[in-house]
Amino acid sequence: MTGTLHGVGVGPGDPELMTLKADRLIRAAKVIAYPTLAGAHSFARSIAAGSIAEGATEIVMDVPMTVARQPAQDAYDAGAAQIEDALRSGLDVVCLCEGDPFFYGSFMYLYARLSGEFTCQVVPGVTSMTASAAMTGMPLAARNEVLTVIPGPLEEAALEARIAGSDSLVIMKVGRHLPKICAVIERLGLLDQATYIERATLPAQVTLPLAQAPEKAPYFSMILITKGADPWL
Amino acid sequence: MTGTLHGVGVGPGDPELMTLKADRLIRAAKVIAYPTLAGAHSFARSIAAGSIAEGATEIVMDVPMTVARQPAQDAYDAGAAQIEDALRSGLDVVCLCEGDPFFYGSFMYLYARLSGEFTCQVVPGVTSMTASAAMTGMPLAARNEVLTVIPGPLEEAALEARIAGSDSLVIMKVGRHLPKICAVIERLGLLDQATYIERATLPAQVTLPLAQAPEKAPYFSMILITKGADPWL
Repeated sequence: MTGTLHGVGVGPGDPELMTLKADRLIRAAKVIAYPTLAGAHSFARSIAAGSIAEGATEIVMDVPMTVARQPAQDAYDAGAAQIEDALRSGLDVVCLCEGDPFFYGSFMYLYARLSGEFTCQVVPGVTSMTASAAMTGMPLAARNEVLTVIPGPLEEAALEARIAGSDSLVIMKVGRHLPKICAVIERLGLLDQATYIERATLPAQVTLPLAQAPEKAPYFSMILITKGADPWL
Repeated sequence: MTGTLHGVGVGPGDPELMTLKADRLIRAAKVIAYPTLAGAHSFARSIAAGSIAEGATEIVMDVPMTVARQPAQDAYDAGAAQIEDALRSGLDVVCLCEGDPFFYGSFMYLYARLSGEFTCQVVPGVTSMTASAAMTGMPLAARNEVLTVIPGPLEEAALEARIAGSDSLVIMKVGRHLPKICAVIERLGLLDQATYIERATLPAQVTLPLAQAPEKAPYFSMILITKGADPWL
């Protein structure tokens, strides 16, 4: 019998925002896997740390941050091979993912490599998107409003077209793209409606009107714009 | 001292997809509140049932399903008044919400009425959107893909424009709008890329290619279309 691969969302940061199911699976896991970016510490692992059993084996995929895709592909190939060995030996593997595995999550790269041959189960998690809305007191969308989720790394013209064509919107992965995004938002006259948030639900959380955002934003930062949202019924 | 109002997301259906925080707050609550639609049983309450303490007071807001907004507004006004009484007497109130409170959730109507005067905390939850992606094995969005969330009740022309202009997309609140939505998707040549899912994560879950969807869809049903999503890195 081969093992099952669980892609487990651990939520946006506060360990108490893990689901009961994530907590149960992580506590029971003999093998844990997670990616790290360019040798940095794993955010997903830090969220789940209190639930990881002593003595659990940890498969770490160190993903280099390069413009070329090949080095990252190689890292996921190598990680998938290690996970495959564990699954073939009959062990289940729990792969930790910040937020939700299928919402801009890295787990899908392992899912693509392994779900053809092994049983893969995905445990959804709380996204940083709804967590940011909760922390800032800004409802994302109500009734028949359309919500658009836009990655910050998009090039400027595409970003502008997407923002202009949206009702409520969330810009993910802001990080070093903050100056470009701010310029677009200001040009569209939306600066007053935009809120900046970093490290949502963590003790180090920062929420500010976008006009007061710091010059340097961490990767885990986000901008919410609720153009049309009306929380009244 | 007045009490705190907690708007607590209980996730998409499987009680194990509640967060640890939701579970803790619900277990400790002396007063629970939730809306019901036109006298039907409360889905949010059924998700949380195993965590509700014996003897907890339950404030039920029965919201009529009418085209006119006033009757629903009256129901939320009456519910807010009951919640206010509890908060003024020093009791905390936990309001249960399917999915996430600020992602098309009814909690925002109470938040609008009560957050000016009382301490309100929102506990984000797993949305039916990412739960549906997890259950169907369809990643919602990766890398720089834009994701659009579209309510099914939109009128046909608006629906068509939104779907045509999107990469990956999710259509929420399908229900009785299914025939209209199907017609639009077929006209846009996207029928083969569309997946239908109802009651995600519940024992009664149904997932089907949209072309095979039942004629009558429940309110808690959804369509996923991943036009551009590529789960490979």
